[in-house]
Amino acid sequence: VSDSPRGRLRAAVIAVGDELLYGATVDTNGAWMGTQLAEHGIPVVERRVVADEGDAIASSLAAALAVADLVILCGGLGPTPDDRTREAVANQLGLAMTTDPALVDMLKDRFRAFGHANLPRNNLKQALVPARAEVMENPRGSAPGLLLSVPDDPSKYVALLPGVPREMKGIFVEELLPRLRRLFTDRMLPVAHRWIHTTGIAESVLSERLQPLLPDDLGGVSLAFLPKLTGVDLRLTVRDEPDGDVARDALDRVERLLAPAVDKYRFESKSGDLVDALAARLGARRLTLAVAESCTGGLIAKRITDRPGASSYFEGGLVAYSDEVKIAQLGVEPDLLARSGAVSEGVALAMARGARAHFGVGATIAVTGIAGPDGGSEAKPVGTVWYAATVGGHERALHRRFPGDRDAIRVRSAQAALNLLYRLLGDDGTP
Amino acid sequence: VSDSPRGRLRAAVIAVGDELLYGATVDTNGAWMGTQLAEHGIPVVERRVVADEGDAIASSLAAALAVADLVILCGGLGPTPDDRTREAVANQLGLAMTTDPALVDMLKDRFRAFGHANLPRNNLKQALVPARAEVMENPRGSAPGLLLSVPDDPSKYVALLPGVPREMKGIFVEELLPRLRRLFTDRMLPVAHRWIHTTGIAESVLSERLQPLLPDDLGGVSLAFLPKLTGVDLRLTVRDEPDGDVARDALDRVERLLAPAVDKYRFESKSGDLVDALAARLGARRLTLAVAESCTGGLIAKRITDRPGASSYFEGGLVAYSDEVKIAQLGVEPDLLARSGAVSEGVALAMARGARAHFGVGATIAVTGIAGPDGGSEAKPVGTVWYAATVGGHERALHRRFPGDRDAIRVRSAQAALNLLYRLLGDDGTP
Repeated sequence: VSDSPRGRLRAAVIAVGDELLYGATVDTNGAWMGTQLAEHGIPVVERRVVADEGDAIASSLAAALAVADLVILCGGLGPTPDDRTREAVANQLGLAMTTDPALVDMLKDRFRAFGHANLPRNNLKQALVPARAEVMENPRGSAPGLLLSVPDDPSKYVALLPGVPREMKGIFVEELLPRLRRLFTDRMLPVAHRWIHTTGIAESVLSERLQPLLPDDLGGVSLAFLPKLTGVDLRLTVRDEPDGDVARDALDRVERLLAPAVDKYRFESKSGDLVDALAARLGARRLTLAVAESCTGGLIAKRITDRPGASSYFEGGLVAYSDEVKIAQLGVEPDLLARSGAVSEGVALAMARGARAHFGVGATIAVTGIAGPDGGSEAKPVGTVWYAATVGGHERALHRRFPGDRDAIRVRSAQAALNLLYRLLGDDGTP
Repeated sequence: VSDSPRGRLRAAVIAVGDELLYGATVDTNGAWMGTQLAEHGIPVVERRVVADEGDAIASSLAAALAVADLVILCGGLGPTPDDRTREAVANQLGLAMTTDPALVDMLKDRFRAFGHANLPRNNLKQALVPARAEVMENPRGSAPGLLLSVPDDPSKYVALLPGVPREMKGIFVEELLPRLRRLFTDRMLPVAHRWIHTTGIAESVLSERLQPLLPDDLGGVSLAFLPKLTGVDLRLTVRDEPDGDVARDALDRVERLLAPAVDKYRFESKSGDLVDALAARLGARRLTLAVAESCTGGLIAKRITDRPGASSYFEGGLVAYSDEVKIAQLGVEPDLLARSGAVSEGVALAMARGARAHFGVGATIAVTGIAGPDGGSEAKPVGTVWYAATVGGHERALHRRFPGDRDAIRVRSAQAALNLLYRLLGDDGTP
């Protein structure tokens, strides 16, 4: 069933772990790798989850090598006795296990740096690798990645990655992808993408508005809708076009067709995170930012400070969860709270103004709402949220009733509030 | 490889869908079914994700039937041409496809209820099922579940479920599980679990300390380590013990053996979230809580308010990201900041005291550290974090150097700070 050595590269992914089979852990690695591989022109033809058992790992590797040229095994590289991936792969491929002295040193350094005098005996096992395996460094953990070619068919490769998502992703991007590019350039399908990030419009509404704008034939460009709680990403793709200029022109054409429906909701951000788009607009005006949060309870401040470099514009935030804190720290009038309730236009604006005074900043965001599951009423059901933003003398408040559970309402509220300030700042950095 | 008809039931799960392989959708169904099946004594021995292709579905079904007695296929039951699961299963098992008149009526009723005069032609396909398949009703969608025994080996069963999670879960719980219980009572393995949540100790260290405490034979109890950034969960499992009292005694015995190594790091929480354990201790003492965060940037407040009911004890928090805010809002002395730096014992304690004054609460948490990637120095490398807690007149500060990237350092810092207050409150709710 296998392609010829010169054919298109095809991948299979095997996630190893009892806890994945039993459902204690959701396998998010598989989807992430599927996206990455597809974007780099390597289709995934099969994915499996198998137990921490040598036989299961070995037989699934054999089956995967029958349909794929690259098999990635993920998980089971840890120091405990139920981590069996390295050994099972070596057995299946007929390779001996050898201790890699460079890995022993690396592990010792790692444990010393974190204040352990000695390397635990268990961790020594992590330096035992199949013969001829190339080590891919893992600066985020103790399990390195490994890459080896299949002795019976050296055109095929097996990669071993740790199961911890951030370790896996680091090795995948920094170590594995560059090697795949070197090994397989001519066997990877050329793929050109363009991402258009939107927020504040539902997938179904966006899709309806786009329909009359788009001809049936998009000139070799395919369009995917990728909805998230924070917005809808549109991904334009041109496959199998080796000329980069031709691909770019085709993407430009479709992007222009989409513009009338999309531009009002679009934001520019390489990472896809609205926080980065907002930071760029604040930076262009040299504005500092502070936030006042009630129902989002710190989520907006967390999202802002998730991004390295936030300290260049972010002063701080106040989580005003109780009415007392809204009154004492943000200067919200007790009368206003009694008259309009905490979830109201007046309180949202008073919180945003209060944050400006409290932190002495140029721009503020405030949110007050009912995230549930309790606290809703007929007039203000769960999901009702008021949010406000100020920039200098300009200010604006909006309200929405967001669908979903507590978590979804909080995520949507935080995004809507960030977006309000983003729009208030305007394309050219002026409100 | 298969068990005898009287042996223990083993399951395999096949998720069907291009969008799962390419990563546009994360397969959460597999983990959910894994948990459900494991809890009902049906171990899942393999899980796969395959493309919407007849051949891939058929060959993975054949392979799964070689290792499992029950194969659940999930997805590909919709009305569009790329929904191919029904037909591929019928082909593989050598069954004809027949139109089920009861299903036609059901589909017509459903579409009428939603205001459509006619059943779309595409949806008629959903009434075409493999001969002898038992229909499992789906009140939440148009794709019914199907259950059939394998003609060549009637002791084996194949179930087809839709891929939409809430439809799949409804059919699984309401239709499939009762049928499995009827068909396989004596072949389902009784399983008893106990979870022990720990935080503040590394998996490798915990594992080393447990080794001398545990005999090789744990009396039928198996022990699994489930590490997360926030701690290590231990899961004790007794399988194949039909007497619940005997299983409980065996779990109690192992729990007592673990205690000397575990108790110092253990917390009691049904959800597994330390925030709930802390909330219980604060509630027992009727203490209110506020937080002051620098490097965690709102993450602690977010975690606290993630949990419904936080307003019963949580007043609010201050994200003091800049030195100016630490001075102006928390009363940290400028001299102290200049002398010791923002990441120091003195500043962590001053922030925790400042939060107590600022919010007028009984208990506080404060964190200041270097989350990176920039801002580290030789004396205070990235990952250096000071955190403090106060309860009434009691206070304590600790520091750590946490491994990992910015995100991991923030998650670990937040957990360590929550844990410091949890330990300060003591088992009986007193510091």
